[in-house]
Amino acid sequence: MNWLAADYSHLVWWLDIVGIYIFGLSGAMLAVRRDLDLFGIIVLATAAATAGGAIRDMMIGDQPAAMLREPSYLASAFASGVTVFFFHRLIERANRPVMLMDAIGLGVFTVAGTSKALAFGLSPAAACLIGVLTACGGGMLRDLLVTEIPRVLREEVYAVAAAAGGGLVVLGHALNWPIVLTACAGAGLTIAIRLIAMRYGLRIPRAR
Amino acid sequence: MNWLAADYSHLVWWLDIVGIYIFGLSGAMLAVRRDLDLFGIIVLATAAATAGGAIRDMMIGDQPAAMLREPSYLASAFASGVTVFFFHRLIERANRPVMLMDAIGLGVFTVAGTSKALAFGLSPAAACLIGVLTACGGGMLRDLLVTEIPRVLREEVYAVAAAAGGGLVVLGHALNWPIVLTACAGAGLTIAIRLIAMRYGLRIPRAR
Amino acid sequence: MNWLAADYSHLVWWLDIVGIYIFGLSGAMLAVRRDLDLFGIIVLATAAATAGGAIRDMMIGDQPAAMLREPSYLASAFASGVTVFFFHRLIERANRPVMLMDAIGLGVFTVAGTSKALAFGLSPAAACLIGVLTACGGGMLRDLLVTEIPRVLREEVYAVAAAAGGGLVVLGHALNWPIVLTACAGAGLTIAIRLIAMRYGLRIPRAR
Repeated sequence: MNWLAADYSHLVWWLDIVGIYIFGLSGAMLAVRRDLDLFGIIVLATAAATAGGAIRDMMIGDQPAAMLREPSYLASAFASGVTVFFFHRLIERANRPVMLMDAIGLGVFTVAGTSKALAFGLSPAAACLIGVLTACGGGMLRDLLVTEIPRVLREEVYAVAAAAGGGLVVLGHALNWPIVLTACAGAGLTIAIRLIAMRYGLRIPRAR
Repeated sequence: MNWLAADYSHLVWWLDIVGIYIFGLSGAMLAVRRDLDLFGIIVLATAAATAGGAIRDMMIGDQPAAMLREPSYLASAFASGVTVFFFHRLIERANRPVMLMDAIGLGVFTVAGTSKALAFGLSPAAACLIGVLTACGGGMLRDLLVTEIPRVLREEVYAVAAAAGGGLVVLGHALNWPIVLTACAGAGLTIAIRLIAMRYGLRIPRAR
Repeated sequence: MNWLAADYSHLVWWLDIVGIYIFGLSGAMLAVRRDLDLFGIIVLATAAATAGGAIRDMMIGDQPAAMLREPSYLASAFASGVTVFFFHRLIERANRPVMLMDAIGLGVFTVAGTSKALAFGLSPAAACLIGVLTACGGGMLRDLLVTEIPRVLREEVYAVAAAAGGGLVVLGHALNWPIVLTACAGAGLTIAIRLIAMRYGLRIPRAR
C-alpha cells in the first residue's frame, strides 16, 4: 500500500477485501458444482480471489505479492470458501445478486490493478493490460483448474468491460483527475458495461 | 541458500534434491502413461519437480528462482525423467513404494517452502500457504499440462497434509524450536497424515 | 534492453517484434478455429506472443516484465490479432508459410531468451532452460487456455530444436564468439532442426 497516499489506502484495502470475497464466492461455487471437498472449495476460492493480483505483482515486481503481505486478504478468500460450504444452496438460488456482485468485483479489481500499475510507472497500454489481468486472472485460473475453457474467453463482453474501465482510469490519471473520482468512474464504467451486456445479450463480432 | 545458516543449507540441499527427484518421477510416469516422447517425459518431470519452488520464488521475490541458480536441481529433475524412460515398467509395478515416496516428497517440499517463506519475513498464514503451494504447485502444473483436473483437487487429504505440516513449522518457528527438530516434525506430520489417509481412505466433508 | 550493448539492442528489438507478431498469429488462428470473438482472438494472440517472455522475466527477476515496458511489444501482439480477424482465410490457406514463420519465431525467441538469461548470469543449463521456456511458454499457455494438451508436448522435435539452439548460444557465449554470429547460429540451428523434422517427419523415441 506504500504506493498510495495513506488517505486512500484505507479505501483500496476495503475495495480489495470486498473484491476478494466476491471472486472467492465464484471460485467456491464452481468447486461445489464440481463436487470437490471442503479443501478443494477453499483452494478454488483462494485461486479465484487472489491469482489475478498475484500475477499482477509478479509481473510488475512488487514482491512479496500483496496477498502474502496482507493476512486479511487470505482471510477474506478463506471466509468466502467457508460461506459457500455452508450456504451454497442459498447462494445458488440468488443467481441475480451473484452476477451483480461478480460485476462489482470486476470493476473493483480493474481499478485496483490499473492504478497500481500506473503507480509503478507503467505505460498506459501496459497499465490497462495489468488491470484486465488483475480482474480476469483469478477467474482464468479458477476455470483452468477444473479444465474448463476460461469464462472470460467464452463470455461476451467480460474482459472488454475491464479494458474500458482500465482505459478510463488511465485517462483520469493522465488528466490529473482526483484519485477517488477516477476510481469510481473506472469501476462504474466497467460495472455498467458488464451489466448492460448481460441484460441485453450484447455480443462481440466473430471472424466470419 | 543464503537465507539459511550454513550448517543447515547442506541438509536443505539434500532434501530439495530428493524431493525434486521424487516429484520428477511422478511427472515422468504420467508422461509415459500419456504416451509422450522422451522430451515430453523430461518436460513433465521438470515441471512436476520444479514448478512449485519456482512459483514460491516468484511470489516471495527470490530471483533468479532457486532452480535456476542450482544446476543440481535441474540435473535431479532430468535424472528422474531418464530413470523413468528406461525403468518405467519396474516403477509401475512398485506402486506402493512410489506412493510412499510421493508422501515423502510432499513432506520435504512443505517444510522447504514454509521455512523459506518464514525466512523472508512472511506472516504465519502466508508462509503456510507458500508451503502448500511449493509442495502442490508442481503436481498441479503436471496435471494441467495433460489437461487433467489436478490430483490435489481430486485426492482426499493431500494438500491438507501439507497445510498441517506447514502449520507445525510455523508453530515451531514462533516457539523457537531448534530448526532441525521443526523441520523433522513438519515433514513427519505431513507424511504421517498423508499415509494414514491413504491407508484408511480418510475423506474430507463435501458440501451437501 | 539495458543488459545489451546499445548496438545490438536495435537488432534484438526487431527480432522480438517479429517473433511476437508471428506467435501472435498462431494464437489468433487457434482462437478463430475455436470460434472465439474478437476479444478472445486478441487475448490468445497476446498470450501466445508474450507469455514466454513474461515467464522468463518473472523467473530471472527482470521486472516489470519487458512486455510491460515496451508498448511496441503489446502493439505487435495486438496487430497480429487484428490481422487474423480480417484475413484468417488467407492465412489458413497459406499453411506452409505459417509453419515456416512459426519455426522462425521459435528460433528468434530461443536466442532472445537464452541470451538474456546469460546476461543475467545464469548457468549454461539454466540459460538453456529459460531459452526453451521463452520460446515454448507462450504456445503452452495458448493451448492450455483452450484446454488442449500443449502442442510442444504432442509435436515431435519442437522444444528439442529450441534446446539445441539454446545450447549453441551457450557454447558461443562460453567461447566468446561475436554476439551476432552466436545469435544467427543459434536461431539458424533451431529453425533448421524444426524444418527438417517437419519435412522428414522425424520422431523422438517413446518409452516402450
